[in-house]
Amino acid sequence: MIRRLFIANRGEIALRVARTAQRLGMTAILGASQGDAASLPAMLADEVALVGPAPSAQSYLDVDAVIAAAIAARADAIHPGYGFLSENARFAKAAADAGIIFVGPDISSLEAMGDKLMARAVGQAAGLPVVPGGEAATPEEALTRARETGFPVLLKAVAGGGGKGMKRVEREEELIPMIAMAMAEAQASFGDPRVYVERFIASGRHVEVQVLGDGEAAIHLGTRDCSIQRRFQKLVEEAPAPMLPNATRSGLEQAAVALAKSLHYKGAGTVEFLVDAKTGDFYFLEMNARIQVEHPVTEAITGVDLVEQQLLVAGGARLSMDQDAIRARGHAIEVRINAEDPEADFRPSPGTVTRAAWPAGPGIRVDSHIASGGMIPPYYDSLMGKLIVWGEDRHAAVARLACALNTLSIEGVASTAPLHRRIAADPRFVAGGVDTRFLEGL
Amino acid sequence: MIRRLFIANRGEIALRVARTAQRLGMTAILGASQGDAASLPAMLADEVALVGPAPSAQSYLDVDAVIAAAIAARADAIHPGYGFLSENARFAKAAADAGIIFVGPDISSLEAMGDKLMARAVGQAAGLPVVPGGEAATPEEALTRARETGFPVLLKAVAGGGGKGMKRVEREEELIPMIAMAMAEAQASFGDPRVYVERFIASGRHVEVQVLGDGEAAIHLGTRDCSIQRRFQKLVEEAPAPMLPNATRSGLEQAAVALAKSLHYKGAGTVEFLVDAKTGDFYFLEMNARIQVEHPVTEAITGVDLVEQQLLVAGGARLSMDQDAIRARGHAIEVRINAEDPEADFRPSPGTVTRAAWPAGPGIRVDSHIASGGMIPPYYDSLMGKLIVWGEDRHAAVARLACALNTLSIEGVASTAPLHRRIAADPRFVAGGVDTRFLEGL
Repeated sequence: MIRRLFIANRGEIALRVARTAQRLGMTAILGASQGDAASLPAMLADEVALVGPAPSAQSYLDVDAVIAAAIAARADAIHPGYGFLSENARFAKAAADAGIIFVGPDISSLEAMGDKLMARAVGQAAGLPVVPGGEAATPEEALTRARETGFPVLLKAVAGGGGKGMKRVEREEELIPMIAMAMAEAQASFGDPRVYVERFIASGRHVEVQVLGDGEAAIHLGTRDCSIQRRFQKLVEEAPAPMLPNATRSGLEQAAVALAKSLHYKGAGTVEFLVDAKTGDFYFLEMNARIQVEHPVTEAITGVDLVEQQLLVAGGARLSMDQDAIRARGHAIEVRINAEDPEADFRPSPGTVTRAAWPAGPGIRVDSHIASGGMIPPYYDSLMGKLIVWGEDRHAAVARLACALNTLSIEGVASTAPLHRRIAADPRFVAGGVDTRFLEGL
Repeated sequence: MIRRLFIANRGEIALRVARTAQRLGMTAILGASQGDAASLPAMLADEVALVGPAPSAQSYLDVDAVIAAAIAARADAIHPGYGFLSENARFAKAAADAGIIFVGPDISSLEAMGDKLMARAVGQAAGLPVVPGGEAATPEEALTRARETGFPVLLKAVAGGGGKGMKRVEREEELIPMIAMAMAEAQASFGDPRVYVERFIASGRHVEVQVLGDGEAAIHLGTRDCSIQRRFQKLVEEAPAPMLPNATRSGLEQAAVALAKSLHYKGAGTVEFLVDAKTGDFYFLEMNARIQVEHPVTEAITGVDLVEQQLLVAGGARLSMDQDAIRARGHAIEVRINAEDPEADFRPSPGTVTRAAWPAGPGIRVDSHIASGGMIPPYYDSLMGKLIVWGEDRHAAVARLACALNTLSIEGVASTAPLHRRIAADPRFVAGGVDTRFLEGL
């Protein structure tokens, strides 16, 4: 049983993890940068331990600094949230070496899923279909791979994640200059120049499956659709994925559980798939070995607190529920309210939020660390909060989303709220089942 | 189908009704007093129609003024909320005469349930057990009734409701002075001096059943426990009622449906019972022919939007669900955050709320019309907002309540939040099933 939980993160997810930890009777210790010392999560945590200066590299991404702070705080477990060090195997190992529980999967799972190529191989071994493609260490190899799979292709950093550094190449003549750029960026961002070349599915939907495991048993909590993205960053997520043929839905769920079982997966994870909107075929993309930003939509329809499950399994418990106990109800949609200007190419808009009026009421959940007067520092991502709506069906959820967005008011910084209002009113979104190109046409 | 809904109320319930109306595509017109013209509900409504000066008697309680405002606003329906004119048969009739739908039961139901004696008779006719007692028009009659039922007895204004004017009399020698006072108060408050004398159940729990009807079919949405009261005003409510024997629970639910069916009840209603904590026997108290303050706990466990059901039935629809479709899940608790000082005998504390930090996150719903800078006028009741928590079971809900209360912060006025923190930590409350005397011992 975990008693003192060190939260190695910031923003809304730090607050959200603290809430569940406190409910479970744990002491929630926030590992905050100096820039976040006065944040809402710092105010609401039981204790605050500073991990370093505001820039991430010197605080949230500094393995040694975070581990030292967790040791000094006498933490018996670390929750890494998402992003930052959440999927960093060296971090998990350092925690284990310090005798501190890492709230996440085993190091072997982190290593297998952290490497795109290994993840693909493990997925294939577990019987999951994958998108045709392969690794390239040189531009020439990339060209060979691209010709094998056919254009357009997608270039991804082998060591990357979360959509960072991905590039789409339409024609063969664009490949060589693009691949050089992609490799340079991969080297700069991830310290690894390798690039992965795969077939680009023109009309694809991003559908993912939430899984939970305890090292032996593994279950799924259904699908989420995260097709509405800009530059591979999700903006809108919903559960369950709408308008999927039943065979596709159950195929995705079974594939995700098969992968989790093959890994003896522990904790919460998400298996991401690309679904060909035309054929219903699906392809395994990657597994995120951590809690996701969009996990609340699954919580909203299942009633399961995923962070609680993470903490219980990390504390040594077996899963407290089997597959039959998971009963989904209704439909949930999450929109990410970022401090970015959608009218100016999503330029970050840090600063003081002079007024933050979040919606409330029936069927509404807001996970945010920003209240009126709150600060958006320039050092981190621009997520200000997540608005999650629930309805008895998708129609009710969309209507509630539109109403809630009308009452949401953010002043002092630009936000993605106006874009979300347009999305919520778009007939294609209202109809459901849009693909990843949706935002291009908005 | 209702298109333009006039909301004849204020505060959190006005906002809550507007939210559902807007989600259903209706125009939400707030009928506000001059004192509420700048309130949050006024800001969030689609239109605002002033109904009169701030004092309730000249605005929210003025039947003619409200009806005139609804006509002028071209409303096709009026939602009366709770309190004020919500159970006023004359108001419902005036709406009907103006060709405006009254969102509530038929006038015959309002008349039957609005009179305690008739309600008791109708309940008995439908087979519901009632507490021994009877009406008294004079002090001498009251003494006769009290001797029949045995002391202690409870005195209630026949025309009253919501616990207003109720008095407990322990011994025979106290009765005559108390009854004189009770009759004078009943005359002053309700224009009707008649008093009802009934046996006081020493260890009683207040348990109520939510019903929905469409004039033909009637269903229940399970129980709520509202035993934690001060001066018969509810402070904490939960669903389902904890620690009830199954036979008692199903007896209550069946009795409530029987009453609703006997009335050909339309819309949302609540049948209130006193449950003898010692024997499990239960007695019909009254039926509230409107939405209740505590309706969100039922919504939290059933997923049903009760205001939506009210609006649909009022618009002429049949109930969209049958009994089997009602599936409850988990446990929910609501606490009322009033602008009152629990350390000073609950003295109202009107004024400006300089800071209102409401909890948020998983399993949390807040229905409130008060944000930072909001005003609590002295004219109305002191409810600032309701904190509703949900958990997979009662234990989880109580833990979440305690954590949420720790993050709730109200500045500028006194509030009941400190009292709720004490309640949430009280071992008797944590164990569940307390009776209506709970607060006396706190």
